Amino acid sequence: MASRLHEIQHQSVTIQAPLPLDSGQSLPSVTIAWQSYGALNADKSNAVLICHALTGDQYVASDHPATGKPGWWARMVGPGKPIDTDRFHVICANVLGSCMGSSGPASPDAATGAPLGMAFPVITIGDMVRAQAMLLDHLGIARLHAVVGGSMGGMQALAWAAAFPDRLGSAIVIASAARHSAQNIAFHEVGRQAIMADPDWQDGQYYGSARAPTKGLAVARMAAHITYLSEAGLTEKFGRRLQARAIKSFGFDADFQVESYLRHQGLAFTDRFDANAYLYITRAMDYFDLAEPHDGRLAGAFAGAKDVRFTLVSFDTDWLYPTAESRRIVQALQSVGAAASFVELSAPFGHDSFLLDVPALDRIVAGALGGGR
Amino acid sequence: MASRLHEIQHQSVTIQAPLPLDSGQSLPSVTIAWQSYGALNADKSNAVLICHALTGDQYVASDHPATGKPGWWARMVGPGKPIDTDRFHVICANVLGSCMGSSGPASPDAATGAPLGMAFPVITIGDMVRAQAMLLDHLGIARLHAVVGGSMGGMQALAWAAAFPDRLGSAIVIASAARHSAQNIAFHEVGRQAIMADPDWQDGQYYGSARAPTKGLAVARMAAHITYLSEAGLTEKFGRRLQARAIKSFGFDADFQVESYLRHQGLAFTDRFDANAYLYITRAMDYFDLAEPHDGRLAGAFAGAKDVRFTLVSFDTDWLYPTAESRRIVQALQSVGAAASFVELSAPFGHDSFLLDVPALDRIVAGALGGGR
Repeated sequence: MASRLHEIQHQSVTIQAPLPLDSGQSLPSVTIAWQSYGALNADKSNAVLICHALTGDQYVASDHPATGKPGWWARMVGPGKPIDTDRFHVICANVLGSCMGSSGPASPDAATGAPLGMAFPVITIGDMVRAQAMLLDHLGIARLHAVVGGSMGGMQALAWAAAFPDRLGSAIVIASAARHSAQNIAFHEVGRQAIMADPDWQDGQYYGSARAPTKGLAVARMAAHITYLSEAGLTEKFGRRLQARAIKSFGFDADFQVESYLRHQGLAFTDRFDANAYLYITRAMDYFDLAEPHDGRLAGAFAGAKDVRFTLVSFDTDWLYPTAESRRIVQALQSVGAAASFVELSAPFGHDSFLLDVPALDRIVAGALGGGR
Repeated sequence: MASRLHEIQHQSVTIQAPLPLDSGQSLPSVTIAWQSYGALNADKSNAVLICHALTGDQYVASDHPATGKPGWWARMVGPGKPIDTDRFHVICANVLGSCMGSSGPASPDAATGAPLGMAFPVITIGDMVRAQAMLLDHLGIARLHAVVGGSMGGMQALAWAAAFPDRLGSAIVIASAARHSAQNIAFHEVGRQAIMADPDWQDGQYYGSARAPTKGLAVARMAAHITYLSEAGLTEKFGRRLQARAIKSFGFDADFQVESYLRHQGLAFTDRFDANAYLYITRAMDYFDLAEPHDGRLAGAFAGAKDVRFTLVSFDTDWLYPTAESRRIVQALQSVGAAASFVELSAPFGHDSFLLDVPALDRIVAGALGGGR
């Protein structure tokens, strides 16, 4: 239930300074919820910012406060792990527009105290990154050893390199893209329409009511979830296997394992995510096109980033952000003289590979963060 | 509106004989709506059955009675066209379970006269084909020169060859598969959940009410429509182009052309299709697996079909029913000694290529139907 979600307390800071937005609007102040792991060293040179994906959060390596499940990248972040918290001060902030403590559509209106809902301004990936920079200013961290992210997290890492190249040693961009394709936008639009078609959405003003658009949000999640997996992965994991009773019901229950799995994914999602936040963040992703302010020349976005070291990783079975998008980024980086290493990894899990057990990814991330210091 | 849809009169016949179903249930009688084009010759040897796809209908080459648009395969069927109605008697029947005049969930209960809704039994592709065979019996047509279909129409053509190989000269199977994959099932399940999540669905008993689950059906159509197009095709057709006003709204209107297109596709669909029919037909497709009754050996389905001439066509950009599925069918046919020709065509339109302007497909279909008689 969305209402319980908003009762969770998160570590956060409210920065009493305006955040100008790409829309031309401005937030008078901005609240950022974040988690950190590992000690910041004396010269504050060992900070690594992890940027999370669409439905991720700041609980990268700690149990999720709503679900109790381990952090979404606990396999990657921790003592002795590829992003080694014995060496690095790891920061992960809930993105602007999300629902885990940072400013978003569930935030109160300054005047009335009521949740803003759709009165919250539409935000962009660039706005998310500027909010993260304000958090780092607040924490007294002038420069990041690295920014790391997969999927929408990778978009933020790219946007960091475009907006703040001088604050950045390296950028690690995994399973991502410099723009949303027509197909990416189309799938997101299906999800938004599913939410907005749910009468419990109530034009986004459901927070005070006993109802929330959980059915619409579940359908949105189901559609999106298919795009996170590969066709071959789905076949291997489920194929046409039936549920335990092993007979077709000749009805509309979940006969196939893949149906049951998808229904579970949809329902479980509504326990940990807010429908309006889903609308806002998908919109930010659809608006993302780093080349747009540079007349479509992606290299223009990286004009100041030639001293940032880039590491890009794609997965051969990722049809959401296919390898060609990473190649396009690498070409733009090379054209401005930035150091960019790129690997396409083979992994069966589709787009979700960046979250899963792919040892080659661990080695690349550890290597990109540099040997012992 | 679904209610107006059900007021349309269709040419149909009600056959007063039971239709035993794969579910074990039985329809006491079956109504089949159909259209035909071209004259049946004296020895009744020139009949070609066209099987339509999920949301298709019998109006293959005549204007659609609800939308007024030309028939869905008017480019393929007509005098002098690849399926030449100067030579062939072309029959197309609305599939069992659909909403254009054949028996389906909107049909009246024999006892009460009220629409059956979800009391209509779940049907299969095999059931659809047996209903078509009953229509041919009624029309006095013992044997088909050919059966032709794309997508779900191709599944029916394959099921014809499996069930009635002796009534068939040739089978032309386009952009199809012998089973639904996990990913295919997953996308259909999203659509069904979108419909059933709509409170206007009312457990399927919406026919008498002033409300129908048009929002849920539109979302289902949007999700499915993406799967009918290729990623490259979407990029070429829409890319990231904005609507006419050419600026981002920083809101949730359809800013991108692809959003507007998808919304239109979703809405327009609800004028010509019934939500319950969508549930039943997607279920029939998901249940489709010709190899299942033969311990997973597809060749077993074609044991009696070695004298049927098969023509299979796939499209290189079709990721819904990819070429590998057609190859699998060809291998099974070859193993039983059936003549099977197979071509993968290059076309940019994804799965929808079978409906669109692909001249090579025209030549293949015309050739498969044989030279002048």
